[in-house]
Amino acid sequence: MSEPRRRGSYAVGRERRERILDAATERFATSGYTSTSMARIAKDVGISTTGLVHHFPTKQHLLLAVADRRFDSAGVVAGPATSADGEQLIRSLQSITRHFLDQPGLIELFVALSAEAADPSSAAHELFAARYERIIDDIAGRFRACARGGSFRADVDYDAIAREVVAVSDGMQLQWVLSGRRTDLAGDSERYLSRLAQALRPSPPPA
Amino acid sequence: MSEPRRRGSYAVGRERRERILDAATERFATSGYTSTSMARIAKDVGISTTGLVHHFPTKQHLLLAVADRRFDSAGVVAGPATSADGEQLIRSLQSITRHFLDQPGLIELFVALSAEAADPSSAAHELFAARYERIIDDIAGRFRACARGGSFRADVDYDAIAREVVAVSDGMQLQWVLSGRRTDLAGDSERYLSRLAQALRPSPPPA
Repeated sequence: MSEPRRRGSYAVGRERRERILDAATERFATSGYTSTSMARIAKDVGISTTGLVHHFPTKQHLLLAVADRRFDSAGVVAGPATSADGEQLIRSLQSITRHFLDQPGLIELFVALSAEAADPSSAAHELFAARYERIIDDIAGRFRACARGGSFRADVDYDAIAREVVAVSDGMQLQWVLSGRRTDLAGDSERYLSRLAQALRPSPPPA
Repeated sequence: MSEPRRRGSYAVGRERRERILDAATERFATSGYTSTSMARIAKDVGISTTGLVHHFPTKQHLLLAVADRRFDSAGVVAGPATSADGEQLIRSLQSITRHFLDQPGLIELFVALSAEAADPSSAAHELFAARYERIIDDIAGRFRACARGGSFRADVDYDAIAREVVAVSDGMQLQWVLSGRRTDLAGDSERYLSRLAQALRPSPPPA
């Protein structure tokens, strides 16, 4: 008897959680993490601060959940992991940078957060370390599917390629922030990925 | 009359400054920035703390000077900027990563510092922003010299290539730190640079 009701309240809680994350993402991206208060986010969502801390005990918890969701979206953008279309994979990876540029404040937040996460004693460390591993595995798997399908070369270490793709993205975001948003982040990323695609294309069979 | 004496004391001050930076680099790399005290560094050099603060008023000043010198070494490793030998340039860039790996503690320090520098209000911001610009210009100039000399293609945006080379290096260092030093930083860097060299080699003239 109580099953449907429990599922119902779970769905409501989940929907509210998503709305909180939307509001927090928006505030962190526009006003910055430090300047944003829990009270401000609660107000944006239209709930009490007590209601907010029920879902996220501290602002740090909220930040980690925003990070978690951003990692997920970086994966989702690349489409089904079984596609063997190399050009499609490259286009998906290019679209991630443009997706990031829609929320420039989040790029700044994540540059700061990823370096903080490099410190093993930080709250973000475990989340970031695990997520980096998962994203790199995911990207490597997509490249290997393309290699199996014949649209990319078979004789390449795709774990190394995946680490490189993520490194380029992180390093270019760091430069973009350091330069006061002046580097051509989308263009640089596209040029790199196009050259990578070119290098991975199988050589034509000898005539 | 006083000229030679002034130069003499300048040289002594300069030599002491270098010894302080050696000691600070060593301590920051092995014990970390936070755990290292000014008194510890003064003791390593064999001077009083008063003598130390004469050269570097605070530990933050010392850190920025260590950063400055590391940036310089990253430039120097690549040899004379007028060389037109593309293979030599690629080898020099590969040697920078190995040079960094000789002091793994400094990689960790710099990952944290570069992200802190991304915040425009931080003391490191101006130094890092200016140095990134200078290093990228320097690397771009070296690539262009190789293109003029014919060992690299002429139809490439070498400012974009230089930004990419620095981004790959930063991003791979971040991953290396996040993974607890488990990624193959030297190997990944070499694979990336070898593929870049391959892509930049001029096409053979049609037979």
